This record gives sequence, C-alpha cells and structure tokens, in this order.
Amino acid sequence: MTQNEPTGEPGRHMSAEIAEQPEVFARLLDRRTEIAEVARQVAERRPRFALLAARGSSDHAALYAKYLIEVLLQLPCGLVSPSTTTLYGAEPDLTDVLLVSVSQSGGSPDLLEVTEAARRRGALTVAVTNTADSPLNRAAELDVDITAGKELAVAATKTYSASLLALYLLVDAVRGGTGEAAAGLPELARATLDGSAEAVEEAVRRYRFVARMVTTGRGYSSATAAEAALKLAETSYLAARAYSGADLLHGPVAAVDEQTGVLAICSEGRGGAAMREVLDVVRGRGADVCAVGSAAAQVPAALRVEVPACAEELAPVLEVLPVQRLALGLALARGGDPDRPRGLAKVTRTR
Amino acid sequence: MTQNEPTGEPGRHMSAEIAEQPEVFARLLDRRTEIAEVARQVAERRPRFALLAARGSSDHAALYAKYLIEVLLQLPCGLVSPSTTTLYGAEPDLTDVLLVSVSQSGGSPDLLEVTEAARRRGALTVAVTNTADSPLNRAAELDVDITAGKELAVAATKTYSASLLALYLLVDAVRGGTGEAAAGLPELARATLDGSAEAVEEAVRRYRFVARMVTTGRGYSSATAAEAALKLAETSYLAARAYSGADLLHGPVAAVDEQTGVLAICSEGRGGAAMREVLDVVRGRGADVCAVGSAAAQVPAALRVEVPACAEELAPVLEVLPVQRLALGLALARGGDPDRPRGLAKVTRTR
Repeated sequence: MTQNEPTGEPGRHMSAEIAEQPEVFARLLDRRTEIAEVARQVAERRPRFALLAARGSSDHAALYAKYLIEVLLQLPCGLVSPSTTTLYGAEPDLTDVLLVSVSQSGGSPDLLEVTEAARRRGALTVAVTNTADSPLNRAAELDVDITAGKELAVAATKTYSASLLALYLLVDAVRGGTGEAAAGLPELARATLDGSAEAVEEAVRRYRFVARMVTTGRGYSSATAAEAALKLAETSYLAARAYSGADLLHGPVAAVDEQTGVLAICSEGRGGAAMREVLDVVRGRGADVCAVGSAAAQVPAALRVEVPACAEELAPVLEVLPVQRLALGLALARGGDPDRPRGLAKVTRTR
Repeated sequence: MTQNEPTGEPGRHMSAEIAEQPEVFARLLDRRTEIAEVARQVAERRPRFALLAARGSSDHAALYAKYLIEVLLQLPCGLVSPSTTTLYGAEPDLTDVLLVSVSQSGGSPDLLEVTEAARRRGALTVAVTNTADSPLNRAAELDVDITAGKELAVAATKTYSASLLALYLLVDAVRGGTGEAAAGLPELARATLDGSAEAVEEAVRRYRFVARMVTTGRGYSSATAAEAALKLAETSYLAARAYSGADLLHGPVAAVDEQTGVLAICSEGRGGAAMREVLDVVRGRGADVCAVGSAAAQVPAALRVEVPACAEELAPVLEVLPVQRLALGLALARGGDPDRPRGLAKVTRTR
C-alpha cells in the first residue's frame, strides 16, 4: 500500500472529479467505434454464459452489467467469487464463457489471477479498466479503456460512472446497437448536477447526525443502492447498508425504524415502479425516506432528489451523481476528508 | 402477509429450533439415498453452468452452494437476480444450465416464476425446500426435501443449516461422493452447542449495547458472515453489515472503528487462514473482534467462540449454531422477541 499524499482542502479532488463526469461521458461516447470493435469480437464468439469479476465500487458496476447482460443479451450471468480461484484453486471448463473483469487500476492481484486462470480455461476475457497498460489489460484477450482520466480521490466517482457507461456501450454494441440511447448523457449529467444541488444540500443537513442508513433500489438501480452504501460508509463512516428492495422485505426491514434514513433509488421504469411497495413498508415503520431518481416525485418521501429521465437501463449512470455529492457533503459536514478516508489506499491488494 | 400468532415466552421457538439441529442433521443424513438419486439425475445431464435462486436466509445457503459448486464440481456459477425475470422478462437460452432454487416455504412467487421460466427455457431445475408439496417443488423437475420439520420462529435457524447440509450432500453426491465427511455432524453439532454456550453468553453481555456490527468471513464462511448479519438485523435490530474479508478491505473498512463490533468467522482451512490479514487491519483500527469457528484460537481477538473442527467445506453448518444463539441472546437482552420480530411475517411475498 502506498500512503496517500496530503491534498490540501478536504474533498477538493472528489468534488472536482464529480464535476468532471459530463466531460468523461462525452469522451467515452466518442470512443464508441473502439468499443464496438471489442463488441464485434465478443459477438463473434457467441458466448453462452457470462461471468463478471470485480472488487469494491467496480463490483457494483459489475452488478449493473449483470442486469444488462441478462436483460439485453439474454445470457445467464454470475458474479465471480475470486476466492474460489485464489484460495481454492478451482479450474472449471470455461468454454463458451465470457469473463468481464472490471477494475479502475487494473492492478488487483486477485482479479489478475482470476482473469489469467479463466483465459487458460477457455473463457473469452475482457478487461474494463481506467489504466490502458495495466497488468489486467495485458492478461485479458480484449480490453476497454474507460478513459476517465487519473482519479486522485480515494473514493471512486468518475471511474465508477464511466465503468457503467463503458459496460452499457459494450453490451449494447454486442447486441448490434449503436449506443444511441446514451447520446444525451453528457447533457443530462450536467442537468443532473446543476438541478440536484439544492436538494442534495438539504439532504446533507438532514442526515448530518443520522446514525444508520439503508439504501435500496430494484433492478438496474440496485447497483446504485449498493454503490451509495459503500460511498457513505467509506467517506462518512456511516453504518450504511444496501438491500435490493425485495431482499429488504425478507428480514432486514425489521431493523428499519424511526432512527433510520432510507435512501431509495426510484427511476422511471419497472425497477422504480416495484419500489412503491418497498417504500410503503419502510414509511409505515417510521423511516425517513429520501428518494433519488427520475421517479422521485411519484413516490412517498420526506425528501426528493430529482434526476432527469432517460432509458431505464441507463438511469444508474445519472442516479449516482447526486449520491456522490451527498457522500461528499456528509463527509465534509461530519469533519472528514473524502479524498483521504482514514485507513484507505487507492489500490487495495487482496488475494 | 399473515399475522404471526402470539408465542408465549419470547424466543422459545427460536431457542427450541436451534437446539433441534443435531437431530435435524441426523435425519437428513439418513436421507442420503434419496438425495443421491436426485444427484444421479443431475450428473447424468452434465450441466455446464449453474444458477442459484433464493431470497433472505436461503440466499446465504445459495452463496454457500455457489462455493461448493465452483470448487467441488468445478462449474461456473451465478446467483440469480429474480427481477431480470419477474420485472424485465428476460428469456435466456438455459440449455446445459442447472438451476437450484432454495426456499424454506417453497412459496415465494418470484422464485416460483424464476423456476418455471428456467424450466421452460431448458434448464434442469431442482428445488430445495422444507415443504415437500410446495408450489416450488411442483414447478421444478427435481426436488430435495430438507425435512427440518415445521419452523415456528420467524427467524430461520434449523431450515438454514439443514439447507446447507442438504446442498452439501447433493453436490457431494453429484461428484460421486457418499457424504462421508458429513457423517459426524450431528455429534459435532451437539458438541458445538454445548461447548460454545458460555462464550456466547459472554458475547451477549459484551455486545448488549453495541451500536454497529460488521460480520466477515472468507471462502465458504462468507455465507456464515452474511447469515450472521441478517440474523442480528432481523432479531436484534442491529445495524449489522456483512462483508467478505477481501471486500471489507476495499473501502468499507473506513467505517470500522473503536465503536464497531466485528464478528469474524475463522475456521480451519484456506478461508480462515486468509482472515488473518483482515483481522490485523480491523484490530489496528481499534475494533472489538469476536472470532467464531474452529480457528478462533489462532487469530487475534478480544473474544473467541470455539467450534469443533470438520472438513472446511462443512464448517458453515457448525459455525452458524453459536451465531444463532448470539442473535437469540442479544434479541432477548435488548427486549425483543426473536420469534416475532417487529413487522416480519414468516413468508415474504415479493416479485
């Protein structure tokens, strides 16, 4: 682990990197031809199953990709447990399998080992990273560079959203799409950041002293809920826990009460529609609900952070922007420095 | 949802059902021939990819089975996101896929829909339930009855451990085993319950006033960590969060401090050995560590709950017993009734 250097004003890197995202999306959209070329090679191999390997924030990008692959490519898909390779040495036959490894740095030893082993066992391997010459890029047969630019804050923001968009463009191109639905994202991202600033400030004031938060979403947006909990835990040290809306009702809802802040991701579409039942239950238990997303106005909530509408499968790219701002704002309000969370390094080396 | 009936003395059902587990294991071991017959039909079909579908506690049994399938059967494996079927209507080609649905009641509408859809699309479907004539059993081509007997407490205990053992026996039989490594489990379970009682009582006193707990494990034991967090959240209303040991170091560890109780599952074997690094980090942050498992004596911890050793892949069946007792004890100490957690019904109907 390398020590993080002092960064001056707390949160200035995270703040700048959040603001950069509209440009990052525009740059990535300009790379559609390169991504389509990777997609062409994937489509040619006609994979029958997909696996995704990732850690930390990238694991939530992988969860998003799992929905994309299952719904848009109609392929059965799983998230890799790296330890079955790194600890237990499993060596399955991976013919007809597509393995996508997602990592900002491309330097995590366990993902490297998983990718190398999968390639040896017949999988078509694709690395999605922000570091074009990383060991992971070299280990994989194909690679996609998310071109988000260097990320200085320890908390991932622009690399997370850029991974989502790159995965969307890749999956859409595999099914023969041109990424048209994503064309407006740079503009929508700008509108999201501008339009949500005031509501986010209010949420920061409201949750300044909260002891526990639950984040929840369904469908594509369950990835946003997972990322929100991680971001709040790692920058604001909050006891934040993510549940898919359905899982929340299977037990954990018992821990939701008047002392719980619930961050509910509600965007237009089937996932957001299915959140209504979940919100009725948590509000019935007295929880304080903050709804985030393009359907925030349509659900019962104490506070709403509205986000412009887009295709449901792209909503997570926008939903996460105010969530990042909320994590930043809460971290600063609670006296932390989200650029240098206590005890975290930018690249975590696990096996 | 049906209302739960009053149950008299708080926690008496949960307490009785925890104590019943040695007998439940013995009964299940007597059914090895029936399970082997299901396994024979699975092996004959030579699946190339496995999917697991479950909700709540059963989802942690599914996570355990994912490790079994990847390591012992050397098959790539994924956990199903039911909403890709129930909300988004995905219809992938599931030829060569084994789908195992795990559900105590066999009555969850989303699992039923996932199982029916998978069978239509060519998967070999197996239901693992505690209700032999359930809709899920009828929907699946094959089924395994875990014969745990009626479970009266809302918090699942014996049906969880019986699901683990049934899944182990099934997977072991698919690879041609006879379940020999599991033969001693009834006796070991008795020894676990007797031998851990005092340490569990001490843990209850210690965590009576804890505000947040993190549970963690690696490999097979990551399922125990996940189940521990759910059990603590649903019975004691604790803000409990589970992380695989590796994921914990990727961010969430920032939220671990002197106010955090860490329940670390450490059993002999590769998963437990990999926990040492994790415990060094969390202890360095001042967290209060309670180690549970057959390797508890070998790790740095403030408190240890020792469990007899067994084959690493079976350790989760034993590790969970003192964890259940801890959840029960904490719930009672904090004034709750774990037989009837506030706002929970035995069968949760989500789609």
